[in-house]
Amino acid sequence: MKRTKILLNESEMPKQWYNMAADLPSPPPPPLNPGTRQPLGPEDLSPLFPMSLILQEVSQERFIDIPEPVLEALTLWRPTPLIRAHRLEKALGTPAKIYYKYEGVSPTGSHKPNTAVAQAYYNKQDGVKRLSTETGAGQWGSSLAFAAALFGLECKVYMVRISFEQKPYRKALMESYGAQIVASPSPDTQSGRAILAEIPDTPGSLGIAISEAVEDAATREDTKYSLGSVLNHVLLHQTIIGQEAIKQLEMAGDYPDKVIGCVGGGSNFAGIAFPFMRDKINGRQIDFIATEPASCPTLTKGEYRYDFGDTAQLTPLMPMYTLGHSFVPPAIHAGGLRYHGDAPLLCHLVKEGLIGAEAYTQVDVFESAIIFARNEGIIPAPESNHAVHGAIKHALQAKEEGKETTILFNLSGHGFFDMSAYSNYLAGNLIDHAMTNEEVRENLEKLAGLPLSFPG
Amino acid sequence: MKRTKILLNESEMPKQWYNMAADLPSPPPPPLNPGTRQPLGPEDLSPLFPMSLILQEVSQERFIDIPEPVLEALTLWRPTPLIRAHRLEKALGTPAKIYYKYEGVSPTGSHKPNTAVAQAYYNKQDGVKRLSTETGAGQWGSSLAFAAALFGLECKVYMVRISFEQKPYRKALMESYGAQIVASPSPDTQSGRAILAEIPDTPGSLGIAISEAVEDAATREDTKYSLGSVLNHVLLHQTIIGQEAIKQLEMAGDYPDKVIGCVGGGSNFAGIAFPFMRDKINGRQIDFIATEPASCPTLTKGEYRYDFGDTAQLTPLMPMYTLGHSFVPPAIHAGGLRYHGDAPLLCHLVKEGLIGAEAYTQVDVFESAIIFARNEGIIPAPESNHAVHGAIKHALQAKEEGKETTILFNLSGHGFFDMSAYSNYLAGNLIDHAMTNEEVRENLEKLAGLPLSFPG
Repeated sequence: MKRTKILLNESEMPKQWYNMAADLPSPPPPPLNPGTRQPLGPEDLSPLFPMSLILQEVSQERFIDIPEPVLEALTLWRPTPLIRAHRLEKALGTPAKIYYKYEGVSPTGSHKPNTAVAQAYYNKQDGVKRLSTETGAGQWGSSLAFAAALFGLECKVYMVRISFEQKPYRKALMESYGAQIVASPSPDTQSGRAILAEIPDTPGSLGIAISEAVEDAATREDTKYSLGSVLNHVLLHQTIIGQEAIKQLEMAGDYPDKVIGCVGGGSNFAGIAFPFMRDKINGRQIDFIATEPASCPTLTKGEYRYDFGDTAQLTPLMPMYTLGHSFVPPAIHAGGLRYHGDAPLLCHLVKEGLIGAEAYTQVDVFESAIIFARNEGIIPAPESNHAVHGAIKHALQAKEEGKETTILFNLSGHGFFDMSAYSNYLAGNLIDHAMTNEEVRENLEKLAGLPLSFPG
Repeated sequence: MKRTKILLNESEMPKQWYNMAADLPSPPPPPLNPGTRQPLGPEDLSPLFPMSLILQEVSQERFIDIPEPVLEALTLWRPTPLIRAHRLEKALGTPAKIYYKYEGVSPTGSHKPNTAVAQAYYNKQDGVKRLSTETGAGQWGSSLAFAAALFGLECKVYMVRISFEQKPYRKALMESYGAQIVASPSPDTQSGRAILAEIPDTPGSLGIAISEAVEDAATREDTKYSLGSVLNHVLLHQTIIGQEAIKQLEMAGDYPDKVIGCVGGGSNFAGIAFPFMRDKINGRQIDFIATEPASCPTLTKGEYRYDFGDTAQLTPLMPMYTLGHSFVPPAIHAGGLRYHGDAPLLCHLVKEGLIGAEAYTQVDVFESAIIFARNEGIIPAPESNHAVHGAIKHALQAKEEGKETTILFNLSGHGFFDMSAYSNYLAGNLIDHAMTNEEVRENLEKLAGLPLSFPG
């Protein structure tokens, strides 16, 4: 019998996170305080995050120990399986070997709990009683709600109003874990009240929800803020994915020629890619392909420069590929990929030419998802569909070239909470939109006045 | 670090199904042809099922080889993890050890694909081109749709109309696998049309949907019918669950004092219980506890006698605990447990005193599910909540008695498609209903004229 799943035992689970910052060929520009425009110091972040996470944010240590209670929480679903896609390979008739790391086995169905449990643990250790966060599609909010339940923390989630109304099941999931959910903008914060007074029927946005969650944490002694992507410490916590994959591929006697993942903020891509990137920096030949929606093409069409992380200009200025913080991506189904920027660490590696990027349209990625589901069984999350499509595209390219190649991709989550997107696709109702260079340029012109790069 | 998950490799997966029929202390009464009232022969079943499955239905062989292509399909998600519920034990303060076998890792999120892939394979082998089936809550329909996609079969699912309307995501899941879904009653069959003519706005029922799916298969040369529970061959295919659990508990150095599962038709319970039942029949002390809803208390309040499997009286007469085939259970959230009878094999073992049964009310089982989710992370399916509640109840009993005991239960699926039930529970809107003896008696009186037992 052909081997399909490569499993690790808990005792084989990585005991340290891998810190990409230790192996960068050049240092990335620092994030800036939005007021002084000077490099950000730990004190700038301390109202929002516990010191242990701030220290991880700036750490240069190559490996950082995973605390025992975090390891124990992770064993509820980790190590996750690495799966050889025999059936998909056969269906495509490709000489390529396709492996996927499946993060959808976590309690909330994605990679997000990898960092949620770590963040909840460190906050608990620092005496924090309560966490605030925002959520759009709901993957992050439900993961933090789950992690807060494990470590006995209260959790308040500001959920973008349109999602709150359209995704009652995500809300029910968070509430089942004991979290408090409110539609954003909410009457619970000053920034929420201000927007409600101005536009009572606003559908809300991630930018507004971030403002509310940040204000909540900044104004309450017992509360800290938690973010599900973009920041260095979040990417750090996700590296357990790639480290497991390295061990599992070793067991299979394989090594990837191409590593593929979808990018929204960048955390699941970094999770699978960074541990392999270390090998590339040390001379090994691997292609890294970050896949993104053509309707929100940050890496393929954005400009590398300083920009705010949120619409309301409350966050530090970050060096990243951006479409401009005022950019409102169309309401595509892969809600988790609708972000105007990307993680600075990831952007730096793209800038350095170590990671490539490709943008795909919705209908194409759903077409690939259906091929995948009918062969491998799993219904991927719309975000993960971009990684699936990338893997299929490169496997078909290998077929055309008659080339044996080994593809590894990250299947970051399942799509059970996103079946309406599949309904729309199957009914022929998905609308494709690819952002033009002209549209990108118009958005970026609004950033005039913000620094392009740090003179440092 | 405490060990949480006990994993098997694919090479350790059982290669044979265990056939309970080989080890019964006494033979169960035969199913009867509804016309002649004589024991059913293979020819009675051949319009509906391929001969290979009919032979399994009547087999007395203790072990039956799992065909290689079925094993390969199963490895897409099997072996499933056995998980020690350390956090739940701690939260309950119980001296009991609690293990659960988690079947929710399958592509469709429950144990149902275990038999779906086997049935699709045997039908394909017999030259069948198309499968028909019914589905209520949608777990079975989506599993057969998935299995049909793997083996290149067409699949038509008659979905109870009220579910069809209330569960569009289950429909989208089945369609993603390429199946054709129709609301039942449908204009596509004679029985469907007859009911539509009489009651145009009927919400439909499982009984009607069975009639349509059976008619579809009986009237088309290229089509056979597929059933997701109750029959011997279905229970046989599920025994891989318990066989894996035996190996995994051995690895943990443990053996269960109590084996617990929820019962609708009986297949997930049989799956985990039968391989251990063999040990019990050979003298080992184990308690088996079948858990069911108080609103549909077949095993705890039903009568052991002959009855039809469906409302329309089309199926063979089966010896089972029944509430009467005309019984319409209240619309509780655990849709998969709303069946008036149970698998004859399971009923026989209850009748012989080898399996005990307990009935629980909805609010109690959801309360237990929330405790479970906040400690173990997984949101169980409403059906599985009955098993969770049983495990918690017996763990608390062990605490009261200061007794160490080892509990194994089957967590048959996750609840991601059932979050509206959790919403209702959290909002205090679940309505409890326990069926009274009087109500049961009234229903059973309608069976006058059907044989109580087989004289044979």
